[in-house]
Amino acid sequence: MADLRLVVVGAGGRMGRALVRAISEARGVMLVGAIERAGAPTLGRDAGVLAGLPALGVPVLDDPAAAFAKADGVLDFTTPAVSLAYAALAAKSGLVHVIGTTGFSAEEAAQLEPASRSAVLVKSGNMSLGVNLLAALVKRAAATLGPEFDIEIVEMHHRMKVDAPSGTALLLGEAAAAGRGTALNDHAARGRDGMTGARREGDIGFASLRGGTVVGDHDVVFAGPFERIVLGHKAEDRMIFARGALKAAQWGFGKAPGLYSMADVLGLTDI
Amino acid sequence: MADLRLVVVGAGGRMGRALVRAISEARGVMLVGAIERAGAPTLGRDAGVLAGLPALGVPVLDDPAAAFAKADGVLDFTTPAVSLAYAALAAKSGLVHVIGTTGFSAEEAAQLEPASRSAVLVKSGNMSLGVNLLAALVKRAAATLGPEFDIEIVEMHHRMKVDAPSGTALLLGEAAAAGRGTALNDHAARGRDGMTGARREGDIGFASLRGGTVVGDHDVVFAGPFERIVLGHKAEDRMIFARGALKAAQWGFGKAPGLYSMADVLGLTDI
Amino acid sequence: MADLRLVVVGAGGRMGRALVRAISEARGVMLVGAIERAGAPTLGRDAGVLAGLPALGVPVLDDPAAAFAKADGVLDFTTPAVSLAYAALAAKSGLVHVIGTTGFSAEEAAQLEPASRSAVLVKSGNMSLGVNLLAALVKRAAATLGPEFDIEIVEMHHRMKVDAPSGTALLLGEAAAAGRGTALNDHAARGRDGMTGARREGDIGFASLRGGTVVGDHDVVFAGPFERIVLGHKAEDRMIFARGALKAAQWGFGKAPGLYSMADVLGLTDI
Amino acid sequence: MADLRLVVVGAGGRMGRALVRAISEARGVMLVGAIERAGAPTLGRDAGVLAGLPALGVPVLDDPAAAFAKADGVLDFTTPAVSLAYAALAAKSGLVHVIGTTGFSAEEAAQLEPASRSAVLVKSGNMSLGVNLLAALVKRAAATLGPEFDIEIVEMHHRMKVDAPSGTALLLGEAAAAGRGTALNDHAARGRDGMTGARREGDIGFASLRGGTVVGDHDVVFAGPFERIVLGHKAEDRMIFARGALKAAQWGFGKAPGLYSMADVLGLTDI
Repeated sequence: MADLRLVVVGAGGRMGRALVRAISEARGVMLVGAIERAGAPTLGRDAGVLAGLPALGVPVLDDPAAAFAKADGVLDFTTPAVSLAYAALAAKSGLVHVIGTTGFSAEEAAQLEPASRSAVLVKSGNMSLGVNLLAALVKRAAATLGPEFDIEIVEMHHRMKVDAPSGTALLLGEAAAAGRGTALNDHAARGRDGMTGARREGDIGFASLRGGTVVGDHDVVFAGPFERIVLGHKAEDRMIFARGALKAAQWGFGKAPGLYSMADVLGLTDI
Repeated sequence: MADLRLVVVGAGGRMGRALVRAISEARGVMLVGAIERAGAPTLGRDAGVLAGLPALGVPVLDDPAAAFAKADGVLDFTTPAVSLAYAALAAKSGLVHVIGTTGFSAEEAAQLEPASRSAVLVKSGNMSLGVNLLAALVKRAAATLGPEFDIEIVEMHHRMKVDAPSGTALLLGEAAAAGRGTALNDHAARGRDGMTGARREGDIGFASLRGGTVVGDHDVVFAGPFERIVLGHKAEDRMIFARGALKAAQWGFGKAPGLYSMADVLGLTDI
Repeated sequence: MADLRLVVVGAGGRMGRALVRAISEARGVMLVGAIERAGAPTLGRDAGVLAGLPALGVPVLDDPAAAFAKADGVLDFTTPAVSLAYAALAAKSGLVHVIGTTGFSAEEAAQLEPASRSAVLVKSGNMSLGVNLLAALVKRAAATLGPEFDIEIVEMHHRMKVDAPSGTALLLGEAAAAGRGTALNDHAARGRDGMTGARREGDIGFASLRGGTVVGDHDVVFAGPFERIVLGHKAEDRMIFARGALKAAQWGFGKAPGLYSMADVLGLTDI
Repeated sequence: MADLRLVVVGAGGRMGRALVRAISEARGVMLVGAIERAGAPTLGRDAGVLAGLPALGVPVLDDPAAAFAKADGVLDFTTPAVSLAYAALAAKSGLVHVIGTTGFSAEEAAQLEPASRSAVLVKSGNMSLGVNLLAALVKRAAATLGPEFDIEIVEMHHRMKVDAPSGTALLLGEAAAAGRGTALNDHAARGRDGMTGARREGDIGFASLRGGTVVGDHDVVFAGPFERIVLGHKAEDRMIFARGALKAAQWGFGKAPGLYSMADVLGLTDI
């Protein structure tokens, strides 16, 4: 079988370079295009060299349509507005569009619908295999355990992170709420401090630690009468997100059009 | 609905007394009999007083047949030989037989088959809700993750425990092996020490800590390329095993004859 | 050597009963008095029976002066106002006064000074051996590690706890601040939530989890460039606080008058 | 002040290249020589390029004497025999010799004595700031806590590691034994498996997990009656060892001749 031909958009950024490295390390895939916005300082440079690799003969260009025309898939960790534009373009060329972009509003997310009618889109707030498996297990645990088990989510990230809780902590909270058949917004207990009173039944608590160079640790605690279950994930390197995106592209190739999640890619929708 | 009438066998032992306490704290169940072996020093004493409770008016006796005749279920954490005898007796009276006894050989386990044709048996090496849910999640995680994820199981118990790894660690190892479709016996890596060489693909490692008064902690680590999933359980009190047994008896009442596991009780067989 | 004669005040409360149990289990100490406030419902009852033990022949009474007259020490987990009254009385009789009471204002704490001129007082916000050792280690680690190590404190307690962070978390935060030579009040980052911006250098972060029946877990994380040190404590049972108080009374007997801490008792003041 | 002039030996190896990167990232130090054994395939190449950096103008050579002649210090993570030879040479030139080499026999270690009479040597089995601080804290905790606290050491490393327990786990065990005033060899409990019987008082237990890409996690557990203290370290990147070596060289410059440890460098000898 021929290698899957992939384009990386935002190729000069941190995640873009990680995607280029992931493609160069994997089998069955090849980099055929590297895209940046018009005017980006990295235009014209070799995508491999930018990623700390030997030259790959793939220059960073600002013409996505031309790149998409000769590709099978596009890997995209950019911004919601940019991803929406790429979605339309990728659908026109019939590419698998892997969207690791975060921060979509509900309205923006809805605008992916037209593209998903004619092309395969895979979108997730966290592309790692481990976090998506964890979310599925959390959902199931929450569905199994009764209200005498309290759910708490604690995460730690590096000192430069500017928001709390992490998007992944919220994703895990959504999974827990879905397992219980409730809405996270009605039950999230964030930023606990001072005289809080006893814990409210059904709450899902969040706590955030910041410090050092931690890539990302998450623990979901189910604390019941005299026993606790703790389901956790530790990310050692950001490459896990790039590899998950690659896996998503390979999985999506040849599938029926639609908007898929990493739970689909990993076969976790039945849990 | 009338309360479920329960007999505790081995009522003078540590787990027997915990079962008596659990029954006295729960709703919908009542203690109608407390059995010990002939000659036991606790014969004739009140089962409640033995358990550190007010007198319950239920003396410890050595006639199981008479006790079973007026009961709906029997809770049994004894020894394999004793449990086999109770199984025959309980089946004759149509009782739900909850077996928390550990250490059955394959041959002994097979001898439960006749009783299971006419009565409900629920048997598990660990009766707690949390550990059984954990085992189901471990099985699923092992089935989902490929061979690039290494599985390690680490447990800690109090300084008096005489064997390693714990039965629960082995139960979790069996769940992991089942998820992978392999046999634990072919892949268990126990007691790692010295020049071990690099890890063998497919191994399931075990490590045991002993100290203090720890009731029982277990962690199952799935260590892959640059990420780890850790699924763990912490027991704070042995009462969780007694409560699980109670739940099993209530679940089993009215079910079709058969040999069930805690996964059946907890609705986890589909994971 | 004769046994140390101890009085428990607040003998009918949760910690009072734990103190009675601790005395009955330990060597070298004996219970000679059990005090409650006038009008308390437990007056007249046997302190042992109240504590779930056989009768000890020590009734709960409301006359502390009489009890102190024939004792060597008093164990006191009550309220600041009550402890201040006992301090005056204990000093008059030359008793060692162990104060596990929490919630003293700076003004109230200062009022212990007169008593400490003529008697031995040992006061701590957490009487356990482990937490006090941990605090000493935290102080030393904070003094050794430079500002490139960020300090975070995370704790978990049961679902009924009404305040956050725990008093022990704050005690550990004080130890960290002391190690750095700063004031905790200027650097505490509590209840992190939302757009927090990057971490401020020198902050000491606090995060609180609540759920189930957790007695008390605390972790102090020192997160630096590409490495973390985590110093933690797990309480399995509230008896550790009673035992620490007992140890404090035994240590204090015969010492020069003064106000001591558990760091003095444990020989940790040099760290 | 002029930059400290450093030579890296074993410059073509994994740790050698990390040392080159650490020097290039740090202030106050400069790389003036890169040495490999005669016949090494990396001879003649630029040490910076080998380390994944731009060229530094420092070729890898096989003449240590010439390199040492114009340097202030040498960083050495090689093998015991090679380090012994470098120690003699470095002493002759009056260099600070930082030895991160592991696996010295007692006899080999003794052979460093002559060099230490005329030069500064800093030697440690683990050069990271965090692990050395941890070892000091472990020693102190072991000295403070009585025999009712059991000590267990658990570590996890990547799937390629061929020995167990890790050298760092043994270093921590030595610290614990030193705190207790005992010899580790008499008390190490390694590879616990099967019918072990109850824990022997005074044992220091070791357990090793292997899997994935874990750089190195260590936990020292002090498990007592109803409480546990856990002192742990997590290495995220091997650069922490290179940075520690750099810090050792800077600290050692100008000190009196002698054989020093990282505890000296970090000011931890009083704990």
